Amino acid sequence: METHKGDYQNNEGGSASNLVNRQTNADDTVINVNGIKIGGEELVIIAGPCAVENREQLLETAKAVCSGGANILRGGAYKPRTSPYSFQGLGEEGLKYLSQARKETGLPIVTEVMDTRQMELVCKYADIIQIGSRSMHNFPLLKEAGKCGKPVLFKRGLMATIDEYLSAAEYILSGGNQEVILCERGIRTFENYTRNTLDLSAVPILKRQTHLPVIVDPSHATGHRWLVPVMAKAAIIVGADGIMVEVHNNPLEALSDGQQSLFPEDFGKLMKELEIIAEVTGRKVYRRNPSMA
Amino acid sequence: METHKGDYQNNEGGSASNLVNRQTNADDTVINVNGIKIGGEELVIIAGPCAVENREQLLETAKAVCSGGANILRGGAYKPRTSPYSFQGLGEEGLKYLSQARKETGLPIVTEVMDTRQMELVCKYADIIQIGSRSMHNFPLLKEAGKCGKPVLFKRGLMATIDEYLSAAEYILSGGNQEVILCERGIRTFENYTRNTLDLSAVPILKRQTHLPVIVDPSHATGHRWLVPVMAKAAIIVGADGIMVEVHNNPLEALSDGQQSLFPEDFGKLMKELEIIAEVTGRKVYRRNPSMA
Amino acid sequence: METHKGDYQNNEGGSASNLVNRQTNADDTVINVNGIKIGGEELVIIAGPCAVENREQLLETAKAVCSGGANILRGGAYKPRTSPYSFQGLGEEGLKYLSQARKETGLPIVTEVMDTRQMELVCKYADIIQIGSRSMHNFPLLKEAGKCGKPVLFKRGLMATIDEYLSAAEYILSGGNQEVILCERGIRTFENYTRNTLDLSAVPILKRQTHLPVIVDPSHATGHRWLVPVMAKAAIIVGADGIMVEVHNNPLEALSDGQQSLFPEDFGKLMKELEIIAEVTGRKVYRRNPSMA
Amino acid sequence: METHKGDYQNNEGGSASNLVNRQTNADDTVINVNGIKIGGEELVIIAGPCAVENREQLLETAKAVCSGGANILRGGAYKPRTSPYSFQGLGEEGLKYLSQARKETGLPIVTEVMDTRQMELVCKYADIIQIGSRSMHNFPLLKEAGKCGKPVLFKRGLMATIDEYLSAAEYILSGGNQEVILCERGIRTFENYTRNTLDLSAVPILKRQTHLPVIVDPSHATGHRWLVPVMAKAAIIVGADGIMVEVHNNPLEALSDGQQSLFPEDFGKLMKELEIIAEVTGRKVYRRNPSMA
Repeated sequence: METHKGDYQNNEGGSASNLVNRQTNADDTVINVNGIKIGGEELVIIAGPCAVENREQLLETAKAVCSGGANILRGGAYKPRTSPYSFQGLGEEGLKYLSQARKETGLPIVTEVMDTRQMELVCKYADIIQIGSRSMHNFPLLKEAGKCGKPVLFKRGLMATIDEYLSAAEYILSGGNQEVILCERGIRTFENYTRNTLDLSAVPILKRQTHLPVIVDPSHATGHRWLVPVMAKAAIIVGADGIMVEVHNNPLEALSDGQQSLFPEDFGKLMKELEIIAEVTGRKVYRRNPSMA
Repeated sequence: METHKGDYQNNEGGSASNLVNRQTNADDTVINVNGIKIGGEELVIIAGPCAVENREQLLETAKAVCSGGANILRGGAYKPRTSPYSFQGLGEEGLKYLSQARKETGLPIVTEVMDTRQMELVCKYADIIQIGSRSMHNFPLLKEAGKCGKPVLFKRGLMATIDEYLSAAEYILSGGNQEVILCERGIRTFENYTRNTLDLSAVPILKRQTHLPVIVDPSHATGHRWLVPVMAKAAIIVGADGIMVEVHNNPLEALSDGQQSLFPEDFGKLMKELEIIAEVTGRKVYRRNPSMA
Repeated sequence: METHKGDYQNNEGGSASNLVNRQTNADDTVINVNGIKIGGEELVIIAGPCAVENREQLLETAKAVCSGGANILRGGAYKPRTSPYSFQGLGEEGLKYLSQARKETGLPIVTEVMDTRQMELVCKYADIIQIGSRSMHNFPLLKEAGKCGKPVLFKRGLMATIDEYLSAAEYILSGGNQEVILCERGIRTFENYTRNTLDLSAVPILKRQTHLPVIVDPSHATGHRWLVPVMAKAAIIVGADGIMVEVHNNPLEALSDGQQSLFPEDFGKLMKELEIIAEVTGRKVYRRNPSMA
Repeated sequence: METHKGDYQNNEGGSASNLVNRQTNADDTVINVNGIKIGGEELVIIAGPCAVENREQLLETAKAVCSGGANILRGGAYKPRTSPYSFQGLGEEGLKYLSQARKETGLPIVTEVMDTRQMELVCKYADIIQIGSRSMHNFPLLKEAGKCGKPVLFKRGLMATIDEYLSAAEYILSGGNQEVILCERGIRTFENYTRNTLDLSAVPILKRQTHLPVIVDPSHATGHRWLVPVMAKAAIIVGADGIMVEVHNNPLEALSDGQQSLFPEDFGKLMKELEIIAEVTGRKVYRRNPSMA
């Protein structure tokens, strides 16, 4: 029951008058999350486990990424899993652990919402709500995100063109919420060495077409721990406003995405490299508290 | 925040013990909708407009497809549109028109649900609920469909492998609802003459792997009216249990999908051809009321 | 060093004045190979092993497909193999065995040419030369094929759009050779159950756009023996002028493509089914010698 | 007539004993072309027009890229064009102009060979022969390249997996020529903003799997002039040993690829940026003659 020829390619929403477009709003949108500015001069680093598995795992990982230099903590309480028999996330219990982790580290938290009915609950806990790749075309959810009053980290669908992606983002903006952070996380191609193919050229294209901040998730894109740092650095070079990486206190025991999760020490090392890279581009990595460095 | 390597390719749900699998249930699942049996010997034809646009359009089209030989009426009241500024469907008003069309023609109705919060309302009107291509990975919606008590027409995502598709169907079955009708509707490829590429080999593969009925939607797959009949016939040859086609009383004025909608007279002609094709395969097209033929 | 934006998508060759186009030549091109007409009312069946492995294997398979009802024998003497360490074909020795098989069965032979320098030699033996999927963009080879004086079985590249395919065919026609048989053999997609995805909608599209005959190769497209017959039948329904299938006297011992090669008895059974399917479409399978049936 | 299931995915050539593999040869292969070392510590920059159009265009562009800091001059004398009616290159005349440009600038030249019969002629003029994306599976050509005695710039096919690409390279190495330079130049995906999708993660993967040098061509990958510099910089960050870019003395009048060709002044600016980027990675851009800078 999709509509129009070329599938989603007949992008009626792609017109210059759309709210997402630079023509409509030439200035970069900068989103302030508890004092952290996303889309400004400083690069924002989001890190944390794929899923919140238990209190200890989350708190330990949160402290590790915090001391490593992360600005925002990620962690899923509701997990979109291929099989109904896989771990589906801890639900509200997971949200509570996230809340506790925020209290202990001071890091704002971003966590995924999958269902319109969860929106209110998730917004009660999260500083930023995430709409995942599989939900990019969940229009009712996008409409709710447009009214939720929280910044939205909105991931590109793994088979969505850039035009379709921006049209989907328009659903959120047209609902009244301009605080949308875009995220390139790999697209599906025939190549099977990597989990997906990181489309880094999408970053400068998005930055040219829209005023919204753009970050990159090299963890899901590559699916391999060893590829995450190098692709994260490239993401900064092509103009990303930040990166989101999976870090786990014990990747080898992770309930999901273990193979692509960094060890805490890898993360700390990556942060140092990103600072050097950022400098070349005339930016720097956000320092929540420079004295912590 | 998706989970597991190979994206959805790490199909933990693909194990032989899954409810969707033939190993679990060797007999074909046959779904009875107001006396029409889907997945049995007879082929089922679902036809109607992409969207319910207004009462007159729907009733006129419904009568046309009924007299042409359709068994079930389709029509969308909630429309997933690329742009938020496109026609989004009539909502409950559309459901009421569908209900009226059922009353006037006797045809059961299938209509899409996009939001968990709509499930109850849509189920009040629909004989079969549809979960569209863009919602294939909307797991909360699939879980609700598992408890809704209505048959579910479940379309393959345009980016989903067959394994991922069956794992997603498992969400519905594991929720307690075995009445799932699968639907191949084209996958995204690099070819751009057609809207998508109809993957007809998916039909025999699905029939081999699962006991669920499988139908084909050649309208969305091809995006071109002239290609619909020929691909519908091929779908029957490869073993589909029915087809779903878009028919509009006035395709040139349709609010969505006009280019791929059949004229009523095309539909009548197609039905006659399908009867001949069905016979070759040892089946026949379902006749709601043979005296109407 | 490829040229032009959109990769090969900027199809300057796609203009209406091209020799391949129906606008240029409305009548179907019918190619006469030793009395067998390809592209006419009767369907042509090409069968044989992937590779010529030795004299016995070829002759035995040739006799089997001949008595099963094949019209043309296929078999590769020069094999494009992924690895340089795989069996590369018998070369001229293989051509000689093909020639002998023709003598013993009366079947014309089609065999692949990969190198401009082989063209003369292959033409000495073959009734039809084949240009394989991997060579679709080998323009020097296409130019030679345009001058070779033999009909050309020209396979679609697994990564080629229909427009690019027709532009490549134009190289052969513009060289002076109008005897080109097109062949859909599957395209590369993300689906991995099948070797490639058979794009059956390409058949009616090609038949509409060009006057050239179009056949389908379900063996390479699917990669699975059990899928070959069902997809072959669908190919006829969508308007193919024939099919090409791999048959091996002993598929379990084949040096290449064993998994997708039919057993001789499968082939005989398929032929009977194709006759029934052909009739529905108002055509029939070519009978080299009806008395042999 | 391709061989084996999974198309080229059944990569028999992918075994650890292959000549391309790091396990076979742990040390980086460094190729010396007239004193310029490709694959060593210094980055190599290849620049020039898509096609050699005439003497003046080539010489002017050659001087521009030379003074801009290029190390090697590119330019096609034989052009693989989608349509037979497009400009096909100047042939040997083009090779002569390249030779003259080398004389005037001192830059070694790389130019494409498409036909086994051209190999000897092209080798007479070229310092490096190029095998283009469309020829990646032209195995006879690869075998000739294995014996040609010149370094080979070997581009990835636009729909080839990394495994298939390395297996194809093995054809050249197994023929006796280890001087192979790999080149990522974009793969075909559903995204249509860019000509292809530059697969930058392929670079670290190739560097890990093989000892051969790896460069990146951002011009063909993106198809847009404005995207070339930013993607070139990212290529260096991910570990490429150099880049190849199209530069034209007058892109707006180019006979091919004008939209993606840099103006000479863009190229000069890019070189300065690449020097800064190189430094961050602990490398530097090759300076043929530092006094020229």
